[in-house]
Amino acid sequence: MKHVSTFMIATAVVAACALHAQDDLAPITLKAPNLNRPGTLMQAFSKRASANEYDGRALELQDLSDLLWAANGVNRPDVKKRTAPSAMNAQDVDIYVFLPEGAYLYDAFASVLKPIAKGDFRAVAVKQPPPQGMPQPPVLLILVSDISRFTRLNDDAAKLINARFDIGIVSENIAMFCAAADLATHTRVAPDAAKLKEILKLSDTQYPMIDHPVAYPKK
Amino acid sequence: MKHVSTFMIATAVVAACALHAQDDLAPITLKAPNLNRPGTLMQAFSKRASANEYDGRALELQDLSDLLWAANGVNRPDVKKRTAPSAMNAQDVDIYVFLPEGAYLYDAFASVLKPIAKGDFRAVAVKQPPPQGMPQPPVLLILVSDISRFTRLNDDAAKLINARFDIGIVSENIAMFCAAADLATHTRVAPDAAKLKEILKLSDTQYPMIDHPVAYPKK
Repeated sequence: MKHVSTFMIATAVVAACALHAQDDLAPITLKAPNLNRPGTLMQAFSKRASANEYDGRALELQDLSDLLWAANGVNRPDVKKRTAPSAMNAQDVDIYVFLPEGAYLYDAFASVLKPIAKGDFRAVAVKQPPPQGMPQPPVLLILVSDISRFTRLNDDAAKLINARFDIGIVSENIAMFCAAADLATHTRVAPDAAKLKEILKLSDTQYPMIDHPVAYPKK
Repeated sequence: MKHVSTFMIATAVVAACALHAQDDLAPITLKAPNLNRPGTLMQAFSKRASANEYDGRALELQDLSDLLWAANGVNRPDVKKRTAPSAMNAQDVDIYVFLPEGAYLYDAFASVLKPIAKGDFRAVAVKQPPPQGMPQPPVLLILVSDISRFTRLNDDAAKLINARFDIGIVSENIAMFCAAADLATHTRVAPDAAKLKEILKLSDTQYPMIDHPVAYPKK
């Protein structure tokens, strides 16, 4: 009986760990956006370019916080509205943040990265490896639309049309912030939807569409 | 014979006019972008919002020029690249500019508005009228993707997916420029594709997808 009990307890512990793998991964509290960052919009448009050469070192927390706020943060808390417009204000675009230690969901209203899965999934989340000789990017952003938020549309095809516009919009906010902040990024249509579904436990209405590696530029 | 000749000449003149209706409409040479415009990117993200209340007066030529350059202008003439990234660098997004006197195509490389059709088509180009009590916007931008430029893709469905991302990207450049320049705009999915096909003589591979009324805000 002793062996059976031990086995049963061990099984229960393993099951609990599997259900709450993210418990080992702490949430990351983001900093308030630094609205005094220098750099004009026109200069950012002037510098906007895709960059494939990057440094592997981690992003400073202020840079990561400002990047996510710019991408799809809350810029009008009183009316719960965002930097990125969305069709019918569906706010369908979620940003998943892949760091070396795990995958997180950007919660724009709480200004927190919520742990989703512990482990380094940067290489498997996308179909396109880093360019020859480049390290994994310190930050990989995956843009996911949850089309169930288009509650005013019945038809999945119409929802997907709007989702793609909304994803393009958030993607360009990322590209523009990176241009202004001298960060390297690249707009890519490379998410591995099947793998991401497994890693992030996505529902059938959540579509990974665009990804952005983000890094300091290679010196 | 005299009457017949006159009739034939008149017919030929009418036909020539119909074929070249845009001859009456002069091209508009745009100004070089003012890269010294003030306004930081972060302040623009902070102010980004849809606005439905606008003034009917025409945009200054410098504002219109800067708006179009920001939207999808050439920021790296040496490599023929643009402020807006596009999938596989297809540069599939064209901006049609509707003014009270006619419809024009923004030629980003020549920095010119090319006349396409004489007349005021602002009301008929879109399915959504101005909000109650508002005038027609002085500028209506229609974003059109020409999916034939995705020469590396065979499948129309795949081309349209990429086209929608690219349209969202250009649309957000417009929204961000308007936020920085204190212009009112609204990202809308209201183009009347059938009417636009007629007015602009679009080909079967050109898809109008998003429109932006642009105006000075109502005081």
